[in-house]
Amino acid sequence: MEKIVIQVINPNTSQAMTETIGRAARAVAAAGTEIVAVSPTQGVPSIEGHFDEAIAAVGVLEQIKRGREQGVSGHVIACFGDPGLLAARELASAPVVGIAEAAMHMATLVATRFSIVTTLPRTLVIARHLLQQYGFERHCAALHAIDLPVLALEDGSGLAQEKVRARCLQAKREDGSGAIVLGCGGMATLAKALTQELGIPVIDGVGAAVKMIESLVALGLSTSKHGDLDYPFAKPLSEAFSHLN
Amino acid sequence: MEKIVIQVINPNTSQAMTETIGRAARAVAAAGTEIVAVSPTQGVPSIEGHFDEAIAAVGVLEQIKRGREQGVSGHVIACFGDPGLLAARELASAPVVGIAEAAMHMATLVATRFSIVTTLPRTLVIARHLLQQYGFERHCAALHAIDLPVLALEDGSGLAQEKVRARCLQAKREDGSGAIVLGCGGMATLAKALTQELGIPVIDGVGAAVKMIESLVALGLSTSKHGDLDYPFAKPLSEAFSHLN
Amino acid sequence: MEKIVIQVINPNTSQAMTETIGRAARAVAAAGTEIVAVSPTQGVPSIEGHFDEAIAAVGVLEQIKRGREQGVSGHVIACFGDPGLLAARELASAPVVGIAEAAMHMATLVATRFSIVTTLPRTLVIARHLLQQYGFERHCAALHAIDLPVLALEDGSGLAQEKVRARCLQAKREDGSGAIVLGCGGMATLAKALTQELGIPVIDGVGAAVKMIESLVALGLSTSKHGDLDYPFAKPLSEAFSHLN
Amino acid sequence: MEKIVIQVINPNTSQAMTETIGRAARAVAAAGTEIVAVSPTQGVPSIEGHFDEAIAAVGVLEQIKRGREQGVSGHVIACFGDPGLLAARELASAPVVGIAEAAMHMATLVATRFSIVTTLPRTLVIARHLLQQYGFERHCAALHAIDLPVLALEDGSGLAQEKVRARCLQAKREDGSGAIVLGCGGMATLAKALTQELGIPVIDGVGAAVKMIESLVALGLSTSKHGDLDYPFAKPLSEAFSHLN
Amino acid sequence: MEKIVIQVINPNTSQAMTETIGRAARAVAAAGTEIVAVSPTQGVPSIEGHFDEAIAAVGVLEQIKRGREQGVSGHVIACFGDPGLLAARELASAPVVGIAEAAMHMATLVATRFSIVTTLPRTLVIARHLLQQYGFERHCAALHAIDLPVLALEDGSGLAQEKVRARCLQAKREDGSGAIVLGCGGMATLAKALTQELGIPVIDGVGAAVKMIESLVALGLSTSKHGDLDYPFAKPLSEAFSHLN
Amino acid sequence: MEKIVIQVINPNTSQAMTETIGRAARAVAAAGTEIVAVSPTQGVPSIEGHFDEAIAAVGVLEQIKRGREQGVSGHVIACFGDPGLLAARELASAPVVGIAEAAMHMATLVATRFSIVTTLPRTLVIARHLLQQYGFERHCAALHAIDLPVLALEDGSGLAQEKVRARCLQAKREDGSGAIVLGCGGMATLAKALTQELGIPVIDGVGAAVKMIESLVALGLSTSKHGDLDYPFAKPLSEAFSHLN
Repeated sequence: MEKIVIQVINPNTSQAMTETIGRAARAVAAAGTEIVAVSPTQGVPSIEGHFDEAIAAVGVLEQIKRGREQGVSGHVIACFGDPGLLAARELASAPVVGIAEAAMHMATLVATRFSIVTTLPRTLVIARHLLQQYGFERHCAALHAIDLPVLALEDGSGLAQEKVRARCLQAKREDGSGAIVLGCGGMATLAKALTQELGIPVIDGVGAAVKMIESLVALGLSTSKHGDLDYPFAKPLSEAFSHLN
Repeated sequence: MEKIVIQVINPNTSQAMTETIGRAARAVAAAGTEIVAVSPTQGVPSIEGHFDEAIAAVGVLEQIKRGREQGVSGHVIACFGDPGLLAARELASAPVVGIAEAAMHMATLVATRFSIVTTLPRTLVIARHLLQQYGFERHCAALHAIDLPVLALEDGSGLAQEKVRARCLQAKREDGSGAIVLGCGGMATLAKALTQELGIPVIDGVGAAVKMIESLVALGLSTSKHGDLDYPFAKPLSEAFSHLN
Repeated sequence: MEKIVIQVINPNTSQAMTETIGRAARAVAAAGTEIVAVSPTQGVPSIEGHFDEAIAAVGVLEQIKRGREQGVSGHVIACFGDPGLLAARELASAPVVGIAEAAMHMATLVATRFSIVTTLPRTLVIARHLLQQYGFERHCAALHAIDLPVLALEDGSGLAQEKVRARCLQAKREDGSGAIVLGCGGMATLAKALTQELGIPVIDGVGAAVKMIESLVALGLSTSKHGDLDYPFAKPLSEAFSHLN
Repeated sequence: MEKIVIQVINPNTSQAMTETIGRAARAVAAAGTEIVAVSPTQGVPSIEGHFDEAIAAVGVLEQIKRGREQGVSGHVIACFGDPGLLAARELASAPVVGIAEAAMHMATLVATRFSIVTTLPRTLVIARHLLQQYGFERHCAALHAIDLPVLALEDGSGLAQEKVRARCLQAKREDGSGAIVLGCGGMATLAKALTQELGIPVIDGVGAAVKMIESLVALGLSTSKHGDLDYPFAKPLSEAFSHLN
Repeated sequence: MEKIVIQVINPNTSQAMTETIGRAARAVAAAGTEIVAVSPTQGVPSIEGHFDEAIAAVGVLEQIKRGREQGVSGHVIACFGDPGLLAARELASAPVVGIAEAAMHMATLVATRFSIVTTLPRTLVIARHLLQQYGFERHCAALHAIDLPVLALEDGSGLAQEKVRARCLQAKREDGSGAIVLGCGGMATLAKALTQELGIPVIDGVGAAVKMIESLVALGLSTSKHGDLDYPFAKPLSEAFSHLN
Repeated sequence: MEKIVIQVINPNTSQAMTETIGRAARAVAAAGTEIVAVSPTQGVPSIEGHFDEAIAAVGVLEQIKRGREQGVSGHVIACFGDPGLLAARELASAPVVGIAEAAMHMATLVATRFSIVTTLPRTLVIARHLLQQYGFERHCAALHAIDLPVLALEDGSGLAQEKVRARCLQAKREDGSGAIVLGCGGMATLAKALTQELGIPVIDGVGAAVKMIESLVALGLSTSKHGDLDYPFAKPLSEAFSHLN
């Protein structure tokens, strides 16, 4: 079996979060899989709304292009809004998986309905739109926000982690859900312990997406270049974006 | 009645298209409305897929910020994919309307079902996603592509225009639709003549969006800053995006 | 710019409400727009269910016919159930807009989700059916009823107005909505003050519909007469309805 | 077993069609069921659009009121658009069933998907809206129109009947449907022979609705008066509608 | 009128419940209808999940085959999950109706929305899937479980019956529903008294399904054998299932 | 990394197909994964409808129980209807994945829309119901049947394989889909060559499900035992089913 290299792209520029995400990816990667955790050279330190997502999407594309040049086997977009997902699929030749879709897909395999626990209330609309686009509206029983910003997960205090835990417990008790999806790349390392403590699947999308990429590669499947995910037409991009050409 | 200034943003960098769009906007604007047609300083010359849209979205935000600083009364995003719409709503204090949503809304007011005629087949998926997000899936009877690139509308040959016309005639004959939505900002100036020739409403989103903005302003309504469309949190953006801060 | 005459039809026979509605319409109409507020000569004094709507629909058609004979530029149906809307579109040559659809369309332009505040609980089902028919089910976060009859809005006590205000405040606090749609023509004059007090868009359909008509007229768009909204077939109507022929 | 009286309301004023409908109703009624076939004293001779429906709805209510005064056991609204259905449910104390809903319900019990064959193309939108409101969009594989007016079914030439037959044969062959719903009260007497000739269920709503009423009566179920189908509030109706009070 | 024989199949092997169901069926059957209440010779004593349903489905098929050999006029599947419904329709030549679908169909005829009251929380997912498959998601306002096992309805204590009653009262008060659907065959005999006590339709699917079968028979309609409900292909079944051949 | 044992259950009793499926599973399994391909001891030789599925579901459960006793790491249900899936999830402690869901999930990761190519037209309804239940209705552009029975895939003539190939080519050309899902376990070994010939992802669910199980195991996720997928209640099963206890 040939070696697999998976580029895990943290769409924000927070180095601490890139490391958290890389750690979570490596913890579940197969023996023959190398994880390359990267983040954009330019962008936004955390992603907490559509504006942040629009900026992050360009950073994702910058890294997709780099990964493609390096010949990676697949790409993971490690932010729960899956920013730039379809654009990345156009640009990439290898498969691309977002952590929100990966976590949601996995959740439907182990429970009839799941709950989502994310960071800020203002990001709930993003999760709702993804549920609709991916087809999982009926599989999601409830969405929760801990009402702390994304970077609180990296402040070392443990407060955000404790709030995530409390919300997961509440969701288990009240939602009638069989599983919980963690709604932020920065929560990736919490899934395992919470799964054990709660006794139900608590799903991190980073790990889920890594396994999805490994699966697609093993199956010989990659983004279809027939139709609407074909490579972008070659065009003269303005200077600020010429690195994407 | 105070003067209204509407910033009409062509999300691509084609100057010819910016002029076409500006002309279409001015043709329907109220007496007291000034149209400022702009395009991003950096970006992509035409938008024909998700990759192009991701780049264009940043250009849209650049212009939204500029328009906000100039105190415009509202913003139109004049590309049929409505790129960056929700991000723009976060950034703007004035109302923001996309031409796809504007045209679709108007179409539902004059017909029970409409058809869409756009440029390239690969952009159909974008229209389909918007129909789903906006709630108009059941109102759209069919989607058509003339299979010419966006800039063919600006090559002066008239071929693209003739293909649009032919497709509209076919759509009227075969789809059972009462109206047609033109699926590209570059088709904006065709709507009036086609409406007269076909005898059914042929709707251009640029004009529709201008009237929507005028309407919102007259009603004293602007993007809600309560909840998920509130201003983006202030954050240190990397250099390439610092002009958006 | 030619003068626009908009016929605003209060589908019930309450003269006080016709005046309220006319006032709201004039408050937002463009300089060149004349508002003609009318109500049916025969009908029901308030509309609080499907039975009332069925009667009111005939009154709406009576007025549509009259307006068409007078050559008005467009018609507004100023009851939140949009009674007789598609029948009116068949009969009219000018565009017809209902206040429920107008308010809902506008709400989706300024917020990702909205709440509705209406009068009696028994009318909620009507709003729910409209949300489904218009495609806005996912855009509506919650529906509320103040549990007072429609005409309480015209009793001069201010009680109904205060209840509307209280419910709007509650909706803002609890629903996670960015905007509120007022679910009764009789609430039309409250929107402006509530928008200011609450700091979020509170939308009245009467004003919204007037602007929609103005927009359609400016765009040269009218109800499609191709297909299912074509004029009714000429038929011998019985005496009671012969005024509609 | 007490005697059941079912009022079958032909919403148009065509006496020939009332008789056709009455005959179809009697052909399937139980031994103890009396069928009273009526039509409005005032109205429209055939129903081929929303305008016609709006007028017919008032006639339906007139008859519902009369039937209620006579103490009938239930009411059938025998026009495929189910005009005035929810208004009639408010007004009636006995159960009310429309022939479109009855036929559609029955069809889902004998096939996974059905086709609809109706009269004029312009009425297809009405059927589509009912499919959506009743929840049967996914159960309907296709809709067909024979492109003849309703009263062609009563002209004695047999042409319309032959066109219905041809369309049913085509629908069986091409739609992948297991059953066919006849989309007009005037087709009621055709169902039996077509069922036999085609070898698949061809469903007439008049008969289906009669059996639904008998079933509801036998089960002791009637329109819920708790909530939004409660009796209309007593109100002073204008002269033209005072017979409905 | 020829005599009708309806085979009412209790999919579980509890004899007490078969008798309850048979009693409920006979209470509403027409004079000329004979009810044959049966249960599988092999199976599971109560059905409280998908595993139980899978076993019960084979028992249902065993009885369908027997009933078909006896020439019954129709079959009722008397468990609220409608286990084996489509398989039974393939095997049967007579019509087959499940009690969940029958009750839900009836509920939509007497109320705009209904609530469901069932036994165990773990069976709610089955009801939810049926609502989706049958098209009634929007017609169901809420689902409730009394949190007692199915056979508690047969323990003679009356506790389960009292809990059903309490939940129905609560549902009437809180859900805004006009009707209640009883979600278990074992609750069949409770509907009449609850309908009277609550003053709203409380619907038992056993009775509803019996009337549906009577209706289909009277209309000359049976399961379509054209297409996907045609008889199963003849195949060599293994010994354990050879009784189904 | 511990060794993984995946039980791949062919729900029919055709030994040839079990071998085909086992071969396809082994071709993509990771180095440390052992594939145990089994089929029920009792059942039906091929699955071509709901009746066949109902029988097969019991065979699936028989094997799930056996696999659980053997301590396998996960179970695959290798028939495109995913028969008995939720029942199997209740019974199993390890994860269970159906090949239809696995293929559909994978398809949405590599294309915006996919087509399905299956065997007999009568099984299309099963695929349609699964698309609805799993949430992928909008992701499926078209369904095709080659109109040959399942076992034609094992007759050695190659005719069925050629028909599958022809339909895939047609689907690529006409549907506007970016990927194709093979709709039968017996087609599992065709995916790789078709993917290469067609130049678009042609997806076999057997391989996809094996990778999904490996992924779930690596992530430490298994079927949730909190809520509606908890183990079946212990009950006295009749003799014919006592092996399932």
